[in-house]
Amino acid sequence: MRTIKMVVQYDGTSFAGWQIQPNGRSIQAVLSDAIREVTGEEVNPTGSGRTDAGVHALGQVCHFRTESRLSTESLRRALNANLPESIVARSVEDAPDGFHAQRDAKGKLYRYIFYDGSVADVFMRRYVWQVHHRLDEAVMNAAARRLVGTHDFRCFASKWPNRATSVRTIWECGLTRQGDFVTLSVAGNGFLYNMVRAIAGTLYEVGRGKWPPERVGEILEGGERKSAGPTAPAQGLFLVEVRY
Amino acid sequence: MRTIKMVVQYDGTSFAGWQIQPNGRSIQAVLSDAIREVTGEEVNPTGSGRTDAGVHALGQVCHFRTESRLSTESLRRALNANLPESIVARSVEDAPDGFHAQRDAKGKLYRYIFYDGSVADVFMRRYVWQVHHRLDEAVMNAAARRLVGTHDFRCFASKWPNRATSVRTIWECGLTRQGDFVTLSVAGNGFLYNMVRAIAGTLYEVGRGKWPPERVGEILEGGERKSAGPTAPAQGLFLVEVRY
Repeated sequence: MRTIKMVVQYDGTSFAGWQIQPNGRSIQAVLSDAIREVTGEEVNPTGSGRTDAGVHALGQVCHFRTESRLSTESLRRALNANLPESIVARSVEDAPDGFHAQRDAKGKLYRYIFYDGSVADVFMRRYVWQVHHRLDEAVMNAAARRLVGTHDFRCFASKWPNRATSVRTIWECGLTRQGDFVTLSVAGNGFLYNMVRAIAGTLYEVGRGKWPPERVGEILEGGERKSAGPTAPAQGLFLVEVRY
Repeated sequence: MRTIKMVVQYDGTSFAGWQIQPNGRSIQAVLSDAIREVTGEEVNPTGSGRTDAGVHALGQVCHFRTESRLSTESLRRALNANLPESIVARSVEDAPDGFHAQRDAKGKLYRYIFYDGSVADVFMRRYVWQVHHRLDEAVMNAAARRLVGTHDFRCFASKWPNRATSVRTIWECGLTRQGDFVTLSVAGNGFLYNMVRAIAGTLYEVGRGKWPPERVGEILEGGERKSAGPTAPAQGLFLVEVRY
Protein backbone atom coordinates (compact mmCIF):
# COMPACT_ATOMS: atom_id res chain seq x y z
CA MET A 1 0.00 0.00 0.00
CA ARG A 2 1.36 3.41 -1.03
CA THR A 3 0.32 6.91 -0.09
CA ILE A 4 0.15 9.20 -3.11
CA LYS A 5 0.36 12.98 -2.90
CA MET A 6 -1.16 14.65 -5.92
CA VAL A 7 -1.23 18.31 -6.95
CA VAL A 8 -4.24 19.18 -9.09
CA GLN A 9 -5.27 22.20 -11.12
CA TYR A 10 -8.92 22.76 -11.92
CA ASP A 11 -11.30 25.19 -13.51
CA GLY A 12 -14.06 25.30 -10.92
CA THR A 13 -16.62 26.90 -13.24
CA SER A 14 -18.77 23.89 -13.88
CA PHE A 15 -18.20 21.98 -10.64
CA ALA A 16 -20.18 21.92 -7.43
CA GLY A 17 -16.95 22.44 -5.46
CA TRP A 18 -14.33 20.03 -4.13
CA GLN A 19 -16.43 17.85 -1.89
CA ILE A 20 -18.54 14.87 -3.01
CA GLN A 21 -22.21 15.65 -2.57
CA PRO A 22 -25.54 14.20 -3.59
CA ASN A 23 -26.36 16.89 -6.16
CA GLY A 24 -23.86 18.22 -8.63
CA ARG A 25 -20.54 17.05 -9.97
CA SER A 26 -17.65 17.59 -7.56
CA ILE A 27 -13.90 17.62 -8.20
CA GLN A 28 -13.42 14.88 -5.61
CA ALA A 29 -15.94 12.58 -7.32
CA VAL A 30 -14.36 13.11 -10.74
CA LEU A 31 -10.90 12.37 -9.32
CA SER A 32 -12.30 9.29 -7.59
CA ASP A 33 -13.72 8.08 -10.92
CA ALA A 34 -10.35 8.53 -12.61
CA ILE A 35 -8.54 6.66 -9.83
CA ARG A 36 -11.05 3.79 -10.18
CA GLU A 37 -10.46 3.66 -13.94
CA VAL A 38 -6.70 3.50 -13.48
CA THR A 39 -6.29 1.32 -10.38
CA GLY A 40 -9.60 -0.51 -10.08
CA GLU A 41 -9.78 0.76 -6.53
CA GLU A 42 -12.64 2.62 -4.89
CA VAL A 43 -11.01 5.54 -3.11
CA ASN A 44 -11.85 9.17 -2.38
CA PRO A 45 -8.85 11.46 -2.44
CA THR A 46 -8.60 13.65 0.67
CA GLY A 47 -8.03 17.31 -0.15
CA SER A 48 -6.08 19.93 1.78
CA GLY A 49 -9.47 21.52 2.29
CA ARG A 50 -12.68 22.11 0.40
CA THR A 51 -13.07 24.67 -2.30
CA ASP A 52 -16.56 26.02 -2.94
CA ALA A 53 -18.58 25.75 -6.13
CA GLY A 54 -16.96 27.92 -8.80
CA VAL A 55 -13.62 28.34 -7.00
CA HIS A 56 -10.54 27.40 -9.04
CA ALA A 57 -7.26 25.77 -8.08
CA LEU A 58 -3.79 26.07 -9.51
CA GLY A 59 -2.32 23.82 -6.83
CA GLN A 60 -4.86 21.98 -4.71
CA VAL A 61 -3.19 19.05 -2.94
CA CYS A 62 -4.80 15.74 -2.07
CA HIS A 63 -3.69 12.29 -1.00
CA PHE A 64 -5.00 8.77 -1.47
CA ARG A 65 -3.80 5.26 -0.78
CA THR A 66 -3.41 2.67 -3.51
CA GLU A 67 -1.96 -0.76 -4.21
CA SER A 68 -1.11 0.23 -7.77
CA ARG A 69 2.49 -0.46 -8.82
CA LEU A 70 2.53 2.10 -11.60
CA SER A 71 5.36 4.61 -11.52
CA THR A 72 4.26 8.05 -10.35
CA GLU A 73 4.71 9.42 -13.87
CA SER A 74 2.62 6.61 -15.41
CA LEU A 75 0.00 7.16 -12.76
CA ARG A 76 -0.10 10.88 -13.54
CA ARG A 77 -0.47 10.28 -17.27
CA ALA A 78 -3.12 7.59 -16.80
CA LEU A 79 -5.13 9.78 -14.43
CA ASN A 80 -4.93 12.72 -16.83
CA ALA A 81 -6.10 10.48 -19.67
CA ASN A 82 -9.20 9.76 -17.58
CA LEU A 83 -9.89 13.29 -16.38
CA PRO A 84 -11.99 15.91 -18.17
CA GLU A 85 -10.18 18.90 -19.71
CA SER A 86 -11.12 21.06 -16.73
CA ILE A 87 -9.06 19.05 -14.21
CA VAL A 88 -5.43 18.07 -14.52
CA ALA A 89 -3.02 16.23 -12.23
CA ARG A 90 0.06 18.46 -12.22
CA SER A 91 2.19 16.11 -10.17
CA VAL A 92 1.92 12.72 -8.52
CA GLU A 93 4.48 11.54 -5.99
CA ASP A 94 4.92 8.95 -3.28
CA ALA A 95 4.47 10.44 0.18
CA PRO A 96 5.50 8.99 3.54
CA ASP A 97 2.99 6.62 5.10
CA GLY A 98 0.55 8.62 7.11
CA PHE A 99 0.89 11.78 5.00
CA HIS A 100 -2.41 13.63 5.24
CA ALA A 101 -3.16 16.44 2.80
CA GLN A 102 -5.37 18.31 5.24
CA ARG A 103 -3.81 17.70 8.65
CA ASP A 104 -0.24 18.18 7.46
CA ALA A 105 -0.87 21.43 5.60
CA LYS A 106 1.15 24.26 7.17
CA GLY A 107 -0.43 27.00 5.12
CA LYS A 108 -2.04 28.10 1.89
CA LEU A 109 -1.72 30.81 -0.70
CA TYR A 110 -4.86 32.15 -2.35
CA ARG A 111 -5.27 34.73 -5.07
CA TYR A 112 -8.36 36.71 -5.86
CA ILE A 113 -8.61 38.57 -9.19
CA PHE A 114 -10.64 41.73 -9.70
CA TYR A 115 -11.14 43.21 -13.15
CA ASP A 116 -12.09 46.88 -13.31
CA GLY A 117 -11.78 47.70 -17.00
CA SER A 118 -14.58 49.77 -18.50
CA VAL A 119 -15.22 47.08 -21.12
CA ALA A 120 -15.85 43.49 -20.04
CA ASP A 121 -13.12 40.96 -20.86
CA VAL A 122 -14.79 37.98 -22.52
CA PHE A 123 -11.79 35.67 -22.14
CA MET A 124 -11.36 36.22 -18.41
CA ARG A 125 -15.06 36.28 -17.56
CA ARG A 126 -14.97 32.96 -15.71
CA TYR A 127 -11.83 33.81 -13.75
CA VAL A 128 -12.30 37.29 -12.35
CA TRP A 129 -14.82 39.44 -10.54
CA GLN A 130 -15.72 42.15 -13.03
CA VAL A 131 -16.41 45.18 -10.85
CA HIS A 132 -17.99 48.39 -12.04
CA HIS A 133 -15.87 50.84 -10.09
CA ARG A 134 -12.24 51.67 -10.67
CA LEU A 135 -10.26 50.29 -7.73
CA ASP A 136 -7.53 52.18 -5.90
CA GLU A 137 -5.02 49.43 -5.23
CA ALA A 138 -2.84 51.72 -3.07
CA VAL A 139 -5.56 52.21 -0.44
CA MET A 140 -6.52 48.55 -0.75
CA ASN A 141 -2.91 47.69 0.07
CA ALA A 142 -2.95 49.99 3.08
CA ALA A 143 -6.08 48.18 4.30
CA ALA A 144 -4.68 44.74 3.46
CA ARG A 145 -1.57 45.33 5.58
CA ARG A 146 -3.75 45.55 8.68
CA LEU A 147 -4.74 41.91 8.21
CA VAL A 148 -1.18 40.59 8.34
CA GLY A 149 -0.36 38.91 11.65
CA THR A 150 -2.21 36.73 14.13
CA HIS A 151 -5.81 37.84 14.65
CA ASP A 152 -9.27 36.53 15.39
CA PHE A 153 -10.74 36.53 11.88
CA ARG A 154 -14.33 35.59 12.80
CA CYS A 155 -15.55 38.83 11.19
CA PHE A 156 -14.57 37.30 7.84
CA ALA A 157 -16.17 33.88 8.37
CA SER A 158 -19.51 33.04 6.78
CA LYS A 159 -20.32 30.26 9.21
CA TRP A 160 -18.48 29.48 12.37
CA PRO A 161 -20.40 26.74 14.10
CA ASN A 162 -18.17 24.18 15.72
CA ARG A 163 -14.48 24.87 15.73
CA ALA A 164 -12.25 25.67 18.62
CA THR A 165 -10.84 28.94 17.46
CA SER A 166 -11.15 31.53 14.74
CA VAL A 167 -7.62 32.82 15.31
CA ARG A 168 -5.40 32.51 12.27
CA THR A 169 -2.07 33.92 11.14
CA ILE A 170 -1.82 35.75 7.84
CA TRP A 171 1.73 35.98 6.54
CA GLU A 172 1.09 38.00 3.45
CA CYS A 173 -1.81 40.11 2.22
CA GLY A 174 -1.26 42.51 -0.66
CA LEU A 175 -2.47 43.65 -4.04
CA THR A 176 -0.84 44.29 -7.38
CA ARG A 177 -2.27 45.81 -10.54
CA GLN A 178 -1.50 44.73 -14.11
CA GLY A 179 -3.56 46.83 -16.50
CA ASP A 180 -7.21 46.38 -15.58
CA PHE A 181 -6.52 43.37 -13.33
CA VAL A 182 -6.01 43.77 -9.60
CA THR A 183 -4.78 40.64 -7.85
CA LEU A 184 -5.06 40.07 -4.12
CA SER A 185 -2.61 37.53 -2.68
CA VAL A 186 -3.29 36.13 0.78
CA ALA A 187 -1.09 33.53 2.45
CA GLY A 188 -1.59 32.19 5.92
CA ASN A 189 -1.57 29.17 8.19
CA GLY A 190 -5.27 28.52 7.78
CA PHE A 191 -8.49 30.07 6.55
CA LEU A 192 -12.03 30.14 7.89
CA TYR A 193 -15.00 29.33 5.67
CA ASN A 194 -15.30 31.98 2.91
CA MET A 195 -12.60 34.05 4.61
CA VAL A 196 -10.66 35.05 1.48
CA ARG A 197 -13.85 35.99 -0.35
CA ALA A 198 -14.99 38.11 2.62
CA ILE A 199 -11.59 39.81 2.71
CA ALA A 200 -11.83 40.42 -1.06
CA GLY A 201 -15.34 41.88 -0.67
CA THR A 202 -14.17 44.13 2.16
CA LEU A 203 -11.11 45.36 0.26
CA TYR A 204 -13.40 46.01 -2.70
CA GLU A 205 -15.42 48.46 -0.58
CA VAL A 206 -12.16 50.18 0.36
CA GLY A 207 -10.85 50.14 -3.21
CA ARG A 208 -13.94 51.77 -4.65
CA GLY A 209 -13.83 54.49 -2.00
CA LYS A 210 -16.84 53.52 0.08
CA TRP A 211 -14.76 52.85 3.19
CA PRO A 212 -11.45 54.28 4.40
CA PRO A 213 -8.64 51.74 4.86
CA GLU A 214 -8.77 52.13 8.67
CA ARG A 215 -12.22 50.60 8.61
CA VAL A 216 -10.61 47.19 8.14
CA GLY A 217 -8.92 47.43 11.54
CA GLU A 218 -12.24 48.33 13.13
CA ILE A 219 -14.00 45.41 11.44
CA LEU A 220 -11.31 43.05 12.71
CA GLU A 221 -11.65 44.35 16.28
CA GLY A 222 -15.45 44.30 16.18
CA GLY A 223 -15.62 40.66 15.17
CA GLU A 224 -18.99 41.01 13.44
CA ARG A 225 -19.44 39.43 10.02
CA LYS A 226 -22.13 41.94 9.13
CA SER A 227 -19.78 44.89 9.50
CA ALA A 228 -17.39 43.48 6.88
CA GLY A 229 -17.93 43.64 3.12
CA PRO A 230 -19.81 41.19 0.90
CA THR A 231 -18.57 37.71 0.08
CA ALA A 232 -16.89 38.25 -3.30
CA PRO A 233 -18.02 35.91 -6.11
CA ALA A 234 -16.39 32.48 -6.20
CA GLN A 235 -15.17 32.77 -9.78
CA GLY A 236 -12.37 35.23 -8.91
CA LEU A 237 -10.79 32.93 -6.32
CA PHE A 238 -7.84 30.60 -6.90
CA LEU A 239 -6.21 28.22 -4.43
CA VAL A 240 -2.65 28.70 -5.66
CA GLU A 241 -0.51 26.60 -3.35
CA VAL A 242 -0.64 24.45 -0.25
CA ARG A 243 2.51 24.46 1.88
CA TYR A 244 3.69 21.47 3.93
CA MET B 1 -29.37 57.32 -41.31
CA ARG B 2 -26.00 56.84 -39.61
CA THR B 3 -23.19 54.41 -40.29
CA ILE B 4 -21.85 52.83 -37.12
CA LYS B 5 -18.39 51.29 -36.82
CA MET B 6 -18.19 48.82 -33.98
CA VAL B 7 -15.21 46.94 -32.53
CA VAL B 8 -16.18 43.64 -30.95
CA GLN B 9 -14.37 41.09 -28.80
CA TYR B 10 -15.63 37.53 -28.68
CA ASP B 11 -14.84 34.13 -27.30
CA GLY B 12 -15.44 31.97 -30.38
CA THR B 13 -15.60 28.69 -28.43
CA SER B 14 -19.32 28.11 -28.60
CA PHE B 15 -20.08 29.89 -31.87
CA ALA B 16 -20.36 28.57 -35.41
CA GLY B 17 -18.12 31.42 -36.60
CA TRP B 18 -18.83 34.98 -37.66
CA GLN B 19 -21.22 34.42 -40.54
CA ILE B 20 -24.96 33.82 -40.24
CA GLN B 21 -25.79 30.29 -41.30
CA PRO B 22 -28.70 27.91 -41.15
CA ASN B 23 -27.22 25.63 -38.48
CA GLY B 24 -25.46 26.91 -35.42
CA ARG B 25 -25.29 30.20 -33.59
CA SER B 26 -23.10 32.78 -35.30
CA ILE B 27 -21.57 35.98 -33.92
CA GLN B 28 -23.26 37.97 -36.68
CA ALA B 29 -26.71 36.62 -35.81
CA VAL B 30 -26.24 37.35 -32.10
CA LEU B 31 -25.10 40.91 -32.88
CA SER B 32 -28.06 41.31 -35.22
CA ASP B 33 -30.42 40.21 -32.42
CA ALA B 34 -28.89 42.77 -30.04
CA ILE B 35 -29.19 45.56 -32.62
CA ARG B 36 -32.87 44.65 -33.13
CA GLU B 37 -33.50 44.76 -29.38
CA VAL B 38 -31.91 48.19 -29.09
CA THR B 39 -33.03 49.94 -32.30
CA GLY B 40 -36.01 47.91 -33.46
CA GLU B 41 -34.26 47.60 -36.81
CA GLU B 42 -33.54 44.43 -38.74
CA VAL B 43 -29.91 44.71 -39.79
CA ASN B 44 -26.95 42.39 -40.22
CA PRO B 45 -23.64 43.96 -39.29
CA THR B 46 -20.98 43.54 -41.98
CA GLY B 47 -17.69 42.24 -40.62
CA SER B 48 -14.15 42.98 -41.79
CA GLY B 49 -14.13 39.34 -42.77
CA ARG B 50 -15.37 36.02 -41.50
CA THR B 51 -13.84 34.17 -38.64
CA ASP B 52 -14.30 30.40 -38.53
CA ALA B 53 -16.05 28.37 -35.87
CA GLY B 54 -13.97 28.47 -32.69
CA VAL B 55 -11.78 31.42 -33.72
CA HIS B 56 -11.68 34.31 -31.24
CA ALA B 57 -11.50 38.07 -31.72
CA LEU B 58 -10.01 40.81 -29.59
CA GLY B 59 -10.82 43.46 -32.19
CA GLN B 60 -13.12 42.33 -34.98
CA VAL B 61 -14.60 45.37 -36.74
CA CYS B 62 -18.05 45.60 -38.30
CA HIS B 63 -20.39 48.28 -39.54
CA PHE B 64 -24.14 48.71 -39.78
CA ARG B 65 -26.57 51.47 -40.65
CA THR B 66 -29.21 52.69 -38.23
CA GLU B 67 -31.73 55.46 -37.69
CA SER B 68 -31.20 55.30 -33.93
CA ARG B 69 -30.46 58.66 -32.30
CA LEU B 70 -28.77 57.16 -29.26
CA SER B 71 -25.31 58.50 -28.46
CA THR B 72 -22.53 56.08 -29.38
CA GLU B 73 -21.83 55.42 -25.70
CA SER B 74 -25.52 54.70 -24.98
CA LEU B 75 -25.63 52.46 -28.01
CA ARG B 76 -22.56 50.56 -26.81
CA ARG B 77 -24.00 50.07 -23.33
CA ALA B 78 -27.41 49.05 -24.65
CA LEU B 79 -25.88 46.55 -27.08
CA ASN B 80 -23.70 45.07 -24.34
CA ALA B 81 -26.74 44.74 -22.09
CA ASN B 82 -28.30 42.60 -24.84
CA LEU B 83 -25.26 40.51 -25.71
CA PRO B 84 -24.22 37.24 -24.07
CA GLU B 85 -21.13 37.26 -21.84
CA SER B 86 -19.04 35.80 -24.65
CA ILE B 87 -19.42 38.84 -26.95
CA VAL B 88 -18.75 42.45 -26.03
CA ALA B 89 -18.86 45.69 -28.02
CA ARG B 90 -15.57 47.36 -27.13
CA SER B 91 -16.30 50.57 -28.98
CA VAL B 92 -19.08 52.10 -31.06
CA GLU B 93 -18.49 55.20 -33.17
CA ASP B 94 -20.03 57.11 -36.04
CA ALA B 95 -18.24 56.44 -39.30
CA PRO B 96 -18.38 58.43 -42.54
CA ASP B 97 -21.25 57.53 -44.85
CA GLY B 98 -20.14 54.68 -47.04
CA PHE B 99 -17.65 53.27 -44.54
CA HIS B 100 -17.40 49.55 -45.21
CA ALA B 101 -15.74 47.29 -42.62
CA GLN B 102 -14.58 44.77 -45.20
CA ARG B 103 -13.76 46.84 -48.30
CA ASP B 104 -12.02 49.61 -46.38
CA ALA B 105 -9.82 47.33 -44.28
CA LYS B 106 -6.15 47.98 -45.06
CA GLY B 107 -4.83 45.10 -43.05
CA LYS B 108 -5.20 42.79 -40.08
CA LEU B 109 -3.20 41.51 -37.17
CA TYR B 110 -3.71 37.93 -36.02
CA ARG B 111 -2.15 36.05 -33.15
CA TYR B 112 -1.91 32.31 -32.75
CA ILE B 113 -1.06 30.84 -29.34
CA PHE B 114 0.73 27.53 -28.85
CA TYR B 115 1.13 25.99 -25.41
CA ASP B 116 3.91 23.45 -25.00
CA GLY B 117 4.01 22.88 -21.25
CA SER B 118 4.33 19.29 -20.10
CA VAL B 119 1.16 19.63 -18.02
CA ALA B 120 -2.05 20.88 -19.63
CA ASP B 121 -3.24 24.34 -18.60
CA VAL B 122 -6.93 24.04 -17.68
CA PHE B 123 -7.58 27.79 -17.74
CA MET B 124 -6.16 28.37 -21.21
CA ARG B 125 -7.55 25.20 -22.76
CA ARG B 126 -10.05 27.05 -24.95
CA TYR B 127 -7.54 29.65 -26.13
CA VAL B 128 -4.41 27.79 -27.15
CA TRP B 129 -3.25 24.82 -29.15
CA GLN B 130 -1.76 22.46 -26.58
CA VAL B 131 1.04 20.73 -28.47
CA HIS B 132 2.94 17.72 -27.23
CA HIS B 133 6.41 18.69 -28.39
CA ARG B 134 8.58 21.44 -27.00
CA LEU B 135 8.82 24.17 -29.65
CA ASP B 136 12.02 25.92 -30.65
CA GLU B 137 10.83 29.47 -31.15
CA ALA B 138 14.21 30.59 -32.52
CA VAL B 139 13.99 28.29 -35.56
CA MET B 140 10.29 29.10 -35.90
CA ASN B 141 11.28 32.77 -36.08
CA ALA B 142 13.88 32.04 -38.74
CA ALA B 143 11.19 30.28 -40.77
CA ALA B 144 8.59 32.99 -40.11
CA ARG B 145 10.88 35.70 -41.45
CA ARG B 146 10.74 34.06 -44.90
CA LEU B 147 7.03 34.80 -45.09
CA VAL B 148 7.43 38.56 -44.67
CA GLY B 149 6.97 40.45 -47.93
CA THR B 150 4.74 40.13 -50.97
CA HIS B 151 4.25 36.53 -52.07
CA ASP B 152 1.74 34.18 -53.63
CA PHE B 153 0.41 32.46 -50.50
CA ARG B 154 -1.77 29.85 -52.22
CA CYS B 155 0.22 27.09 -50.50
CA PHE B 156 -1.37 28.25 -47.24
CA ALA B 157 -4.97 28.49 -48.48
CA SER B 158 -7.47 25.74 -47.72
CA LYS B 159 -9.79 26.59 -50.60
CA TRP B 160 -9.02 28.95 -53.41
CA PRO B 161 -11.90 28.71 -55.83
CA ASN B 162 -12.87 32.05 -57.25
CA ARG B 163 -10.70 34.98 -56.43
CA ALA B 164 -8.44 36.94 -58.70
CA THR B 165 -5.19 36.56 -56.88
CA SER B 166 -3.59 34.75 -53.97
CA VAL B 167 -0.83 37.32 -53.67
CA ARG B 168 -0.72 39.06 -50.31
CA THR B 169 1.74 41.20 -48.39
CA ILE B 170 2.81 40.17 -44.90
CA TRP B 171 4.28 43.03 -42.89
CA GLU B 172 5.15 41.16 -39.76
CA CYS B 173 5.53 37.49 -38.90
CA GLY B 174 7.29 36.51 -35.69
CA LEU B 175 7.09 34.52 -32.49
CA THR B 176 7.69 35.25 -28.84
CA ARG B 177 7.77 32.91 -25.87
CA GLN B 178 6.45 33.64 -22.38
CA GLY B 179 6.92 30.58 -20.22
CA ASP B 180 5.12 27.69 -21.90
CA PHE B 181 3.23 29.95 -24.31
CA VAL B 182 4.55 30.67 -27.79
CA THR B 183 2.68 33.42 -29.62
CA LEU B 184 2.80 33.87 -33.38
CA SER B 185 1.92 37.38 -34.59
CA VAL B 186 1.10 37.85 -38.27
CA ALA B 187 0.10 41.19 -39.77
CA GLY B 188 -0.61 41.79 -43.42
CA ASN B 189 -2.82 43.48 -45.98
CA GLY B 190 -5.06 40.45 -46.41
CA PHE B 191 -5.34 36.77 -45.65
CA LEU B 192 -6.55 33.79 -47.66
CA TYR B 193 -8.99 31.28 -46.18
CA ASN B 194 -7.35 29.47 -43.23
CA MET B 195 -4.02 31.09 -44.10
CA VAL B 196 -2.92 31.96 -40.56
CA ARG B 197 -3.83 28.50 -39.30
CA ALA B 198 -1.88 26.88 -42.15
CA ILE B 199 1.12 29.09 -41.35
CA ALA B 200 0.79 28.15 -37.66
CA GLY B 201 0.62 24.44 -38.56
CA THR B 202 3.68 24.77 -40.80
CA LEU B 203 5.72 26.65 -38.20
CA TYR B 204 4.69 23.99 -35.69
CA GLU B 205 6.40 21.34 -37.86
CA VAL B 206 9.50 23.53 -37.91
CA GLY B 207 9.33 24.27 -34.18
CA ARG B 208 9.14 20.63 -33.20
CA GLY B 209 12.10 19.79 -35.41
CA LYS B 210 10.35 17.85 -38.16
CA TRP B 211 11.30 20.35 -40.85
CA PRO B 212 14.23 22.75 -41.19
CA PRO B 213 13.31 26.44 -41.40
CA GLU B 214 14.36 26.61 -45.08
CA ARG B 215 11.48 24.28 -45.87
CA VAL B 216 9.10 27.21 -45.53
CA GLY B 217 10.73 29.00 -48.47
CA GLU B 218 10.39 25.85 -50.57
CA ILE B 219 6.72 25.45 -49.63
CA LEU B 220 6.07 29.07 -50.62
CA GLU B 221 7.76 28.58 -53.99
CA GLY B 222 6.06 25.26 -54.66
CA GLY B 223 2.58 26.67 -54.16
CA GLU B 224 1.08 23.34 -53.12
CA ARG B 225 -1.16 23.26 -50.06
CA LYS B 226 -0.32 19.63 -49.44
CA SER B 227 3.38 20.38 -48.96
CA ALA B 228 2.66 22.80 -46.11
CA GLY B 229 1.81 21.81 -42.53
CA PRO B 230 -1.60 21.01 -41.06
CA THR B 231 -4.29 23.60 -40.43
CA ALA B 232 -3.76 24.42 -36.76
CA PRO B 233 -6.87 24.16 -34.53
CA ALA B 234 -9.20 27.18 -34.55
CA GLN B 235 -9.12 27.68 -30.79
CA GLY B 236 -5.57 29.10 -30.76
CA LEU B 237 -6.39 31.87 -33.26
CA PHE B 238 -7.26 35.48 -32.38
CA LEU B 239 -8.16 38.30 -34.76
CA VAL B 240 -6.44 41.06 -32.80
CA GLU B 241 -6.91 44.20 -34.87
CA VAL B 242 -8.23 45.44 -38.18
CA ARG B 243 -6.44 48.46 -39.62
CA TYR B 244 -8.16 51.13 -41.77
